[in-house]
Amino acid sequence: MSLKVVIIGGGSSYTPEIIDGMIKRHHQFPVSEIVLVDIDEGERKQEIVANLAKRMIEDAKASIQIRYTKDRRKALQGADFVTTQIRVGGLKARALDESIPLKHGMIGQETNGAGGVFKAFRTIPVLLEIASDIHEICPNAWLVNFTNPAGIVTEAVMKHSQHQKVIGVCNIPYNMRSGIGEIFNVSADRVMIEFIGLNHFVFGKRVFIDGVDQTDEAMRHLIDDDLNYSPANIVSLPWNKNFLQSLNMLPNPYHQYYFQHEEILAKDLQAYRENGTRAEVVMEVENKLFEKYKNPNLKEKPQELEERGGAYYSESACSLMSSIYNNSMDVQTVNTLNKGSIPDLPSDAVIEVNSVISASGPMPLAIGPLPDTISGSIIQLKKFEQLVIDAAVTGDYRKAYASIIMNPLVTSDEKAQMVLDELLQAHKPYLAQFDKEVVNV
Amino acid sequence: MSLKVVIIGGGSSYTPEIIDGMIKRHHQFPVSEIVLVDIDEGERKQEIVANLAKRMIEDAKASIQIRYTKDRRKALQGADFVTTQIRVGGLKARALDESIPLKHGMIGQETNGAGGVFKAFRTIPVLLEIASDIHEICPNAWLVNFTNPAGIVTEAVMKHSQHQKVIGVCNIPYNMRSGIGEIFNVSADRVMIEFIGLNHFVFGKRVFIDGVDQTDEAMRHLIDDDLNYSPANIVSLPWNKNFLQSLNMLPNPYHQYYFQHEEILAKDLQAYRENGTRAEVVMEVENKLFEKYKNPNLKEKPQELEERGGAYYSESACSLMSSIYNNSMDVQTVNTLNKGSIPDLPSDAVIEVNSVISASGPMPLAIGPLPDTISGSIIQLKKFEQLVIDAAVTGDYRKAYASIIMNPLVTSDEKAQMVLDELLQAHKPYLAQFDKEVVNV
Amino acid sequence: MSLKVVIIGGGSSYTPEIIDGMIKRHHQFPVSEIVLVDIDEGERKQEIVANLAKRMIEDAKASIQIRYTKDRRKALQGADFVTTQIRVGGLKARALDESIPLKHGMIGQETNGAGGVFKAFRTIPVLLEIASDIHEICPNAWLVNFTNPAGIVTEAVMKHSQHQKVIGVCNIPYNMRSGIGEIFNVSADRVMIEFIGLNHFVFGKRVFIDGVDQTDEAMRHLIDDDLNYSPANIVSLPWNKNFLQSLNMLPNPYHQYYFQHEEILAKDLQAYRENGTRAEVVMEVENKLFEKYKNPNLKEKPQELEERGGAYYSESACSLMSSIYNNSMDVQTVNTLNKGSIPDLPSDAVIEVNSVISASGPMPLAIGPLPDTISGSIIQLKKFEQLVIDAAVTGDYRKAYASIIMNPLVTSDEKAQMVLDELLQAHKPYLAQFDKEVVNV
Amino acid sequence: MSLKVVIIGGGSSYTPEIIDGMIKRHHQFPVSEIVLVDIDEGERKQEIVANLAKRMIEDAKASIQIRYTKDRRKALQGADFVTTQIRVGGLKARALDESIPLKHGMIGQETNGAGGVFKAFRTIPVLLEIASDIHEICPNAWLVNFTNPAGIVTEAVMKHSQHQKVIGVCNIPYNMRSGIGEIFNVSADRVMIEFIGLNHFVFGKRVFIDGVDQTDEAMRHLIDDDLNYSPANIVSLPWNKNFLQSLNMLPNPYHQYYFQHEEILAKDLQAYRENGTRAEVVMEVENKLFEKYKNPNLKEKPQELEERGGAYYSESACSLMSSIYNNSMDVQTVNTLNKGSIPDLPSDAVIEVNSVISASGPMPLAIGPLPDTISGSIIQLKKFEQLVIDAAVTGDYRKAYASIIMNPLVTSDEKAQMVLDELLQAHKPYLAQFDKEVVNV
Ligand SMILES: [Mn+2]
Ligand SMILES: [Mn+2]
Ligand SMILES: [Mn+2]
Ligand SMILES: [Mn+2]
Repeated sequence: MSLKVVIIGGGSSYTPEIIDGMIKRHHQFPVSEIVLVDIDEGERKQEIVANLAKRMIEDAKASIQIRYTKDRRKALQGADFVTTQIRVGGLKARALDESIPLKHGMIGQETNGAGGVFKAFRTIPVLLEIASDIHEICPNAWLVNFTNPAGIVTEAVMKHSQHQKVIGVCNIPYNMRSGIGEIFNVSADRVMIEFIGLNHFVFGKRVFIDGVDQTDEAMRHLIDDDLNYSPANIVSLPWNKNFLQSLNMLPNPYHQYYFQHEEILAKDLQAYRENGTRAEVVMEVENKLFEKYKNPNLKEKPQELEERGGAYYSESACSLMSSIYNNSMDVQTVNTLNKGSIPDLPSDAVIEVNSVISASGPMPLAIGPLPDTISGSIIQLKKFEQLVIDAAVTGDYRKAYASIIMNPLVTSDEKAQMVLDELLQAHKPYLAQFDKEVVNV
Repeated sequence: MSLKVVIIGGGSSYTPEIIDGMIKRHHQFPVSEIVLVDIDEGERKQEIVANLAKRMIEDAKASIQIRYTKDRRKALQGADFVTTQIRVGGLKARALDESIPLKHGMIGQETNGAGGVFKAFRTIPVLLEIASDIHEICPNAWLVNFTNPAGIVTEAVMKHSQHQKVIGVCNIPYNMRSGIGEIFNVSADRVMIEFIGLNHFVFGKRVFIDGVDQTDEAMRHLIDDDLNYSPANIVSLPWNKNFLQSLNMLPNPYHQYYFQHEEILAKDLQAYRENGTRAEVVMEVENKLFEKYKNPNLKEKPQELEERGGAYYSESACSLMSSIYNNSMDVQTVNTLNKGSIPDLPSDAVIEVNSVISASGPMPLAIGPLPDTISGSIIQLKKFEQLVIDAAVTGDYRKAYASIIMNPLVTSDEKAQMVLDELLQAHKPYLAQFDKEVVNV
Repeated sequence: MSLKVVIIGGGSSYTPEIIDGMIKRHHQFPVSEIVLVDIDEGERKQEIVANLAKRMIEDAKASIQIRYTKDRRKALQGADFVTTQIRVGGLKARALDESIPLKHGMIGQETNGAGGVFKAFRTIPVLLEIASDIHEICPNAWLVNFTNPAGIVTEAVMKHSQHQKVIGVCNIPYNMRSGIGEIFNVSADRVMIEFIGLNHFVFGKRVFIDGVDQTDEAMRHLIDDDLNYSPANIVSLPWNKNFLQSLNMLPNPYHQYYFQHEEILAKDLQAYRENGTRAEVVMEVENKLFEKYKNPNLKEKPQELEERGGAYYSESACSLMSSIYNNSMDVQTVNTLNKGSIPDLPSDAVIEVNSVISASGPMPLAIGPLPDTISGSIIQLKKFEQLVIDAAVTGDYRKAYASIIMNPLVTSDEKAQMVLDELLQAHKPYLAQFDKEVVNV
Repeated sequence: MSLKVVIIGGGSSYTPEIIDGMIKRHHQFPVSEIVLVDIDEGERKQEIVANLAKRMIEDAKASIQIRYTKDRRKALQGADFVTTQIRVGGLKARALDESIPLKHGMIGQETNGAGGVFKAFRTIPVLLEIASDIHEICPNAWLVNFTNPAGIVTEAVMKHSQHQKVIGVCNIPYNMRSGIGEIFNVSADRVMIEFIGLNHFVFGKRVFIDGVDQTDEAMRHLIDDDLNYSPANIVSLPWNKNFLQSLNMLPNPYHQYYFQHEEILAKDLQAYRENGTRAEVVMEVENKLFEKYKNPNLKEKPQELEERGGAYYSESACSLMSSIYNNSMDVQTVNTLNKGSIPDLPSDAVIEVNSVISASGPMPLAIGPLPDTISGSIIQLKKFEQLVIDAAVTGDYRKAYASIIMNPLVTSDEKAQMVLDELLQAHKPYLAQFDKEVVNV
């Protein structure tokens, strides 16, 4: 029996991670074929990655076929799972998402603020095309989406594609479980966190070790021991103790953009002046990684990969695919339809939520009403996300403006227009839906 | 390490079922002590049951201590789990719940209609006392409630007791899974049904075999093959095909009272005229059972027990307790807080819902909005249940009247008063909360 | 300046009422032209009515032009208001709506139970056509809908027509205010009732005399003095005192079908056996009325018109049109979009609610959550209504079945099918949308 | 018949405004007695104001008795209306509310940001005492609250006082109608704006002139003609055109703090450096006003009063009291219970909403769901307001911290603590509820 996985964005430096994950899980998730797909710009990188993947598989003596192609539709034939780890416009586009807002004195970041909005604007149309292809060519395949902003993109597919078998994945929840595991000196799999919120805006409401509620203990540690969960790609500052005490929940590192806005902005501006954008830093890391990947003696993913900030992404994705394949009914944290899990949010919104993973996909656990402290912020962010989706699919300038000005990291009506217009101009090649509008600006 | 279970209503004829369940599960749920508790009226029956239990345990070579007592508070000391299978007023009270409405030409049934309301009125105060004792004496113990109307009683405890570790159990969901398993020729554990609704008013929205959606196939079978799930204690008629097609969900047998109202009423009235109440039939069955139980050579639960209609109750309760004990994180169907699982119902309402069972109790799976066809009925029933609870805890005559007249099986404002007044009079010894009111009538 | 009113269903015996209303209000609502529209079957009646109307206007020396036609689209040109008082299939169809359910031992009534469902099935497609014509020909005109079931029909237009300027009217709210006025010995215009609910399922939650809350006093009167609001067209029984006390609101006469189900059914069955359907009684009343109308000396609406049960309908409609015309900003009770007025119901549902009447239409007053006692019933009825609308516009047999079985006056799954099939057959000429389905039955 | 109004905070410089309003309305709102009440600090000012009031009344030949006192409870005897226009801590406290946040580089303003939070913390306990006195002494009296933050304070009374007859008043809605009236060249009473939102965070969703929807025209004017509604007390900048186009609603001037955050902060900081706080400016204006008031020849409110920023406050309050007195059933914009008017907000939240004013108080008009663009912001602000109320009544430090950090104008977790601690210290005499907490800090 065949089991085929298609990796769209196969030339990503992360690909060896996911290959490694599939090798390790081969006994329970017996993939027989992996096809990497990329576009012209990723062609050479994809070749390098594919060759490394072949060496890794050979070394592990796993019976997995590796292929790579630029023909997406052909690749999709017979696929059981499709993962997307694309970056529309590449790291150059990310550099613009970061630098343009920063030039105007506002947060310029990959998935937050005006930069995050434009990453969504560029990505959503491409993901909708991919979903459409899947629905036509391999309608039973699950689309496992890594591409950021993962929550927004997943909701866009749910709302605007016929293909409903889509799940968004982020490594933050696993990072947080892992961090809590370290504190309690247990492995991550003994930690359950009741997550509540949205991708990159998720809180840990309750902490369980072996099923026993240890939230108070966890909060005590966090407050007293300055625990730090931050993934590599975001600046990290310690939290004010009163913030943690008032919240009485685990924040995630991205919350710093919202609740340490002033300090993070100052740090980011300084870093930008000194080293340019984070995108430029990443480009260098990537270049070095690909140099390593070329090494014909390299037969496993190199250590340096973890520096990239995406550690555990592949872990999350592989264990998700395996649980669907095996109807495992275990609990994993994914981006999927709310369905009342948080009754304050629309049932058809995508949230990041603990879900039982079955052969028919994720079934979210109900959480109940949002805690008073953070309900306003979470609802506001979700409404913002929906403005983004609406603008991304319609290409309506006013909706785009609305999504920018309603972002909590955008500081004024005037600046909203400036960054909107500059980003529309800068990303023009990837924003066909706004064509009519951009002319008018 | 000790593991103590207290069975309140120990003299119930069902007790050997649950003893049997605990013996079978002893390897994974190593109960060290079982204490049966009953009141004066159950004293002799409890002794008989306890002796049978001892023989069963001895025969099985399980190391479980059995004791029995009338001192509930003493029994609760050190308890880990408390199950309640009481019947306030005994089968005599049930006979009144059945006969008084029937005399007025209305459905007279144990858990539905005016009879069900009065079972709740009698039971809720007692369960609140038990919950209060648990909260004081063994606050970490889980209260596993079998007593009907299980959904209403569980919500009453959740809303009016400090003890929040309470779970309601019914065998209908397991019966339905088992019935579907027979159709598909697989064991019940390979069947998952997405249940939606309330105890005794639950529907099977989707059917999965090994995680794969087989709802259409299941509905086809139901419509073509006249599948029948009915437990022993309710009259069973086949469903109209159009009803099943319009519903496109699995009904449960109790739905007949609502959607075959006229026919069931006719049948029940005839049965009542010919054989008296169901309670009286059960009394005979019980008498025979207890005669069997006395037999010193009997070392296992007798076959006849299944006739009683409560098959799988103990199955459900034992596997629930075992999963809590082991933090199993498997999915079971229980009566617990909604928490948004059905966003059309209040978050703090109790519903019957698939839940992941952890050491911290059940975590319900979110289902999403109620299907149009049945949303009105389910919401209406839940509102009715809440009127019942409100009347039961306040002893307010007008609220009691409201709960009766708003029950869909009660046919007029005049008859509502008649059955209300007669049932208040008939059950006076068990309705201290209504004392002031009953005098006024 | 011209002000044109089109009356669709101009041959109705009620028309002289509305003509009378427009004559009396001519100083504030200066109608210059009234066009009656009817179909072939109403041609002769319309002529009689038009001639009476001319005599009434002449007698009153009002400068209103009267015309009548069968060409609806032509009549609509330049219209400012369009009223609809049609009866699709005429009184013969009503006789079937009444008799077929009664033959099966179920409530057979014009606007409730299975009969009401079929009145909706026949009426909705016609009203949607009218609304479509209005939207095309006179898009600024208000559609004031008298046709029953007025709430359901109005919601159908709101949801399935582009023409959103539609308001449903019923005389029950005015009747209730008038009844309360009699009790308090004040005129109806000094009475305000906070209505809550749906057309023909509306309750009076609070009673104000000159703005002062007199609800308790009103309830006391109702309970002690056996006040009776019943319009002529429905059987009337006194309410059980405990019902009124538990409700603590004013019921409307149609509530008897739901809360005195058994007694009303018995009475209706007896009446049917003795005198045939209510439709047949009405036919005779109408014949006599039209004989009167022909009298060339008759120059005002005859007394007998009030027997018809529609008293105050024209009052309600004329004062509504006048307030829109004058932007009066007074409060009237109409069927319009909920918009949160009752937050437990969808914002886009039509409810019967006190509304400020402006030149831009009705603005409903917010009421707040439904009282516990009746929230279940009201939500259930609204969901039922939405099943009816869904079936009416799709012509889907399963949806039609669902709407019938979910009606609280339908007593079983088998009978649901019988009355559905018989009514579909009986009304075939008026149910083109079900054509495909009826063949299959 | 007597009609008594009590003005708490009688020494306010605004009092002559309200006296003027009552004189002008004397024919329809025949006040027979006005009692001014103030505390020691306001004693001399109150005397001055009372004397001016007497001269005004004498000059107008109105038969109104004026008295003033420091004995609030005595003053309340027999009161029909009580207005509150107090400022707990006086303008000195306001100066601290403004300066402390500004020193930390954050918005320091009377009703927004951390300053607004502390105004609520100081005011809520006093208003709850007043409401408690009213409930005891003159339970039928309406409390008309001018005191800011008027929406938050009104909700606090609704939720934490037995006295439910309370209405909050602000002049912004009238200012906006008046501004629109100027554009359309009609008087304000011909303008209706459909307001949606919260006090100082209200939007004008639709504009009607004589009941006809002119929203598009109004937006066109606003965008093309740089219309400006700003009251005197807040800095005013023009809006970005795209902001207005995206919003497609009328913003109110306080929205600048949120949507022109950066620019307003810069302006406010500069103004603060140059002229000190707005409070200090107001102190001077007040001193000059009181010098005028002392003039025994002054017999009317002086022109300079309008500079104060509170123009139309008295207009709003007097017309509100008059409409209650007369059961006028006209539409006014007040702060009252939501009741579903905006179904996205809790029914028991206070919102600023068009309401029909009856003898039984305001009945809000239902609006329907919040527009997508601003629903997130409005919900977030309401949740923030509820955190403020919760902290104000409990005196819980963590809740106070939560309310500060969740305010959109507070820029970081660290700064949240700094301004919280400094403001708690600075306002200690007025924050008895935080006593325990402040010690701990
Ligand atoms: Mn992520
Ligand atoms: Mn059961
Ligand atoms: Mn009617
Ligand atoms: Mn204000």
